[in-house]
Amino acid sequence: MTSKKVIEIFYDVVSPYSWLAFEVMCRYRNVWNINIKFQPIFLGGIMQGSGNKSPSLVPNKFLYMSKDLTRLSDYFDVPLRSPSDPYEAMFKKGSLNAMRFVTAVQEKGKGGDQWVERVSRELWRRIWNEAKDITEPASLSEAGRKAGMSESDIKELLELSNSKEIKNKLKSSTQNALDYGAFGSPLMVCHLNGNPEIFFGSDRFELMAHCIGEKWLGPLPDKSAAKL
Amino acid sequence: MTSKKVIEIFYDVVSPYSWLAFEVMCRYRNVWNINIKFQPIFLGGIMQGSGNKSPSLVPNKFLYMSKDLTRLSDYFDVPLRSPSDPYEAMFKKGSLNAMRFVTAVQEKGKGGDQWVERVSRELWRRIWNEAKDITEPASLSEAGRKAGMSESDIKELLELSNSKEIKNKLKSSTQNALDYGAFGSPLMVCHLNGNPEIFFGSDRFELMAHCIGEKWLGPLPDKSAAKL
Repeated sequence: MTSKKVIEIFYDVVSPYSWLAFEVMCRYRNVWNINIKFQPIFLGGIMQGSGNKSPSLVPNKFLYMSKDLTRLSDYFDVPLRSPSDPYEAMFKKGSLNAMRFVTAVQEKGKGGDQWVERVSRELWRRIWNEAKDITEPASLSEAGRKAGMSESDIKELLELSNSKEIKNKLKSSTQNALDYGAFGSPLMVCHLNGNPEIFFGSDRFELMAHCIGEKWLGPLPDKSAAKL
Repeated sequence: MTSKKVIEIFYDVVSPYSWLAFEVMCRYRNVWNINIKFQPIFLGGIMQGSGNKSPSLVPNKFLYMSKDLTRLSDYFDVPLRSPSDPYEAMFKKGSLNAMRFVTAVQEKGKGGDQWVERVSRELWRRIWNEAKDITEPASLSEAGRKAGMSESDIKELLELSNSKEIKNKLKSSTQNALDYGAFGSPLMVCHLNGNPEIFFGSDRFELMAHCIGEKWLGPLPDKSAAKL
């Protein structure tokens, strides 16, 4: 039995705001009385299921997002750097393979949540720091290697990524997020006395702290090796 | 000469997030070393000019907004209450008359910024607390009265609201916000060593504080009589 509050974070590594939220949650898990549950989802499915549109369709919004991310990267101490063509990286190439791989790591990987955390971070680093691909098997393998997996682990999990079981698991997690009210990524669900309180984005931590009876201390320094 | 940093807040009273930002800015003007410049704009013009769409078109986003505003109202100590039909209040009835009135108050009112502040707050209170109209002359008059204007002041300013001068002033302020990169309301522009730093919404105060070299102390208690 534990009295820790459970916070689920539904995320897709294609989303830069999700990286910020993910790192903040990882930093706070030993500061607040919480258990973090990683919930890999597919942002494309969330956008389609909710009828939401990409912010890149509004030029002023897209310009603001670039500026906002640069400032937040500095303030949150997360090494975000926009790819030269963020629209292509985010919406054309997509993240379906990547998120199936993360799902396989979570469902079948020997390393449990530690692997999920590390491989997610490596994928974010690839797309949002190094402007590298996250769609090809070779790219996913490299992320797996950096996350500490062996070659045979990676091979097995890559194969599993294409199984019906993993595809369905990612689908059902995405649907779960939609059912909670998601219209983008990240969505955080705080379970308080059986009531889910949902928070969208990476700008409600102060409010979340207030709701769960904890104190917001700012983004805290990076001890996660997210920094290069 | 003053060394105070100038922060412009571009806002429309139809926007609830703008009310939050407006009250926070009013509370901080004696805490941070800043001068606030109120910039009434017309949100309809911003949406059209930027190509942005109402959040109400995405049901999950709209549901989240309601929940988010309820929580923020409590946390920010601003008495926001959603009208029974927020979509109608915000997007069908509109705020053109109201924002022309606020512009007239700013341009020609004897009470200067104090009147602008009070009448804006009264209009927000009408639409976002009392679910009352803000389109009819009688509604604007009542807001003016509560803001401390005389009957003759109100009459004069209501007439001026329909003048070409005031219509053009609101248009040019709205265009000014668009030129800064607005795609909604509020937009805050911090002038730092000649460089404008723009912040959208009511969720970047912690970051804004960091950028202007001040400390974010949370939303602070309400001393503005915004509370009923």
